[in-house]
Amino acid sequence: MDWLLILDLFGVFVFALSGGFDAAKYKLDILGILVLSIATAVGGGIMRDVLLGVNPPVAFTNEIYLLTCLSGGLVVIFFSGRVEKHINWVNNADAIGLGVFAAIGAAKAVESGLGWVGVLMISAMTATGGGLIRDLLLREIPMILRADFYASAAIIGGASYLGAYHLGLSEQWSLLLSASIAIISRFIAMKYGLSLPNARGSKYRE
Amino acid sequence: MDWLLILDLFGVFVFALSGGFDAAKYKLDILGILVLSIATAVGGGIMRDVLLGVNPPVAFTNEIYLLTCLSGGLVVIFFSGRVEKHINWVNNADAIGLGVFAAIGAAKAVESGLGWVGVLMISAMTATGGGLIRDLLLREIPMILRADFYASAAIIGGASYLGAYHLGLSEQWSLLLSASIAIISRFIAMKYGLSLPNARGSKYRE
Amino acid sequence: MDWLLILDLFGVFVFALSGGFDAAKYKLDILGILVLSIATAVGGGIMRDVLLGVNPPVAFTNEIYLLTCLSGGLVVIFFSGRVEKHINWVNNADAIGLGVFAAIGAAKAVESGLGWVGVLMISAMTATGGGLIRDLLLREIPMILRADFYASAAIIGGASYLGAYHLGLSEQWSLLLSASIAIISRFIAMKYGLSLPNARGSKYRE
Repeated sequence: MDWLLILDLFGVFVFALSGGFDAAKYKLDILGILVLSIATAVGGGIMRDVLLGVNPPVAFTNEIYLLTCLSGGLVVIFFSGRVEKHINWVNNADAIGLGVFAAIGAAKAVESGLGWVGVLMISAMTATGGGLIRDLLLREIPMILRADFYASAAIIGGASYLGAYHLGLSEQWSLLLSASIAIISRFIAMKYGLSLPNARGSKYRE
Repeated sequence: MDWLLILDLFGVFVFALSGGFDAAKYKLDILGILVLSIATAVGGGIMRDVLLGVNPPVAFTNEIYLLTCLSGGLVVIFFSGRVEKHINWVNNADAIGLGVFAAIGAAKAVESGLGWVGVLMISAMTATGGGLIRDLLLREIPMILRADFYASAAIIGGASYLGAYHLGLSEQWSLLLSASIAIISRFIAMKYGLSLPNARGSKYRE
Repeated sequence: MDWLLILDLFGVFVFALSGGFDAAKYKLDILGILVLSIATAVGGGIMRDVLLGVNPPVAFTNEIYLLTCLSGGLVVIFFSGRVEKHINWVNNADAIGLGVFAAIGAAKAVESGLGWVGVLMISAMTATGGGLIRDLLLREIPMILRADFYASAAIIGGASYLGAYHLGLSEQWSLLLSASIAIISRFIAMKYGLSLPNARGSKYRE
């Protein structure tokens, strides 16, 4: 439980970075950067809690979440000088958050007694929800479509948690293992994948 | 109840087609097509269940829904070769799903004891929610604004269900009747309606 | 309680105007204008109720809300002739709705026993949610990013409610005071603020 909180806050922090650095690319002011950091960081978890019937979501009841978002946003405001670097920072932070939230989403879905389908879907929505809100707010092509092997990395993470859990591993180790597997899959996909098809598709759209 | 499930799965299938064919237009890869199929197919029903307090939504607890989404997505992946055909396929599948989900949304809202306003609004959101998520993900002008007589076809469906229900028809017949009326109204609107005003409005926007 | 309802309906009405006039800019037909009016007017309150576990949201159970949305939409349809005026009307109505909903969101969050973080976040989401849905539907740069001092005006409103409430003011006076403070802050920001950075940022995006 404590482990889950620590890992959750780590995911919140990295997603706050990804949202903030994405906002910095658009030269948003400090408040815009904080709004993006918060929305990206807690968006996925709020979706997860709403779907699991946790009212109000934990991000509204535990101030540590907001403080973690703000600290992530402040890091961005401090380092947002070198814009050209941000794209990579956004993608890397996003990949780490994706894996962490996939694992936590799976753990909370298992806790609430869902079957494998529910666990995988909650896991994928927890992992991709925050980034989706970020992309919708900034009107970018959603990473879930633009990025190679993105939702699938989340699903691999959720499936790994299910596997580890049923093999009898403790929640801690299941979390760490599945998060690592999801993050590694995503980083491998970022290294070798190509997201050109989407970009072209939607360019020739507008 | 069984009837409701069968009709619901039919709506999920056609919306999975509409989301998938829309994704195919943008040359998304197989995973992107599946993501769009799932999001479009279960998005409206998830909104409905969240609003009615069904936690977790049925799409997370009954694997038949995900399997139906995937089968719809696979149909798209198999037939997505002839791109020029897709626009019509998207619109036709969307129109059928619109009517089916309007009827089911109304039925579930009546079951949970809502008044006529709640029934019509849940009906409209169930019917238009999946397509809205599809359009937001693909950054298209939402069909609810672009398309002629779209939300109104859903509302006509919801109202027909209310009427049939209060006239004492069984749930089955109320569902079939109201779904048919909504689908027919939408197809008539597609045949004779012109959505140019919106298109022009938003073209002169960007 | 009654006060809260009256103020809530006032916020619904002005947000219905802001959504409707925004829709009129795009030459949407009457139905499109009504859809935008309703989505903008009740969107924030539905988010708030879902997050606070009020199922179904009050907008679905009390027909006065829908009738208020429709009356706002009809006002737009009647006055939407002079398009050039609308931009100001959208912003002014939006600013008033922002303050009113920030106060009501804070009041309902306090009622449901949330701490200061939850109260501020619910307040901000109630105030900005409807406008965000409007901007997403019309594919505009979300006002929460485009507009100067927007989310912050909502947060100031929520904080003022908390302050007034803990100073022992009655709910009525806390509501009026915090709504006024939020609206005034937003109008001051609109008079002196400049939202160019965002606009440029996102222009150079597309």
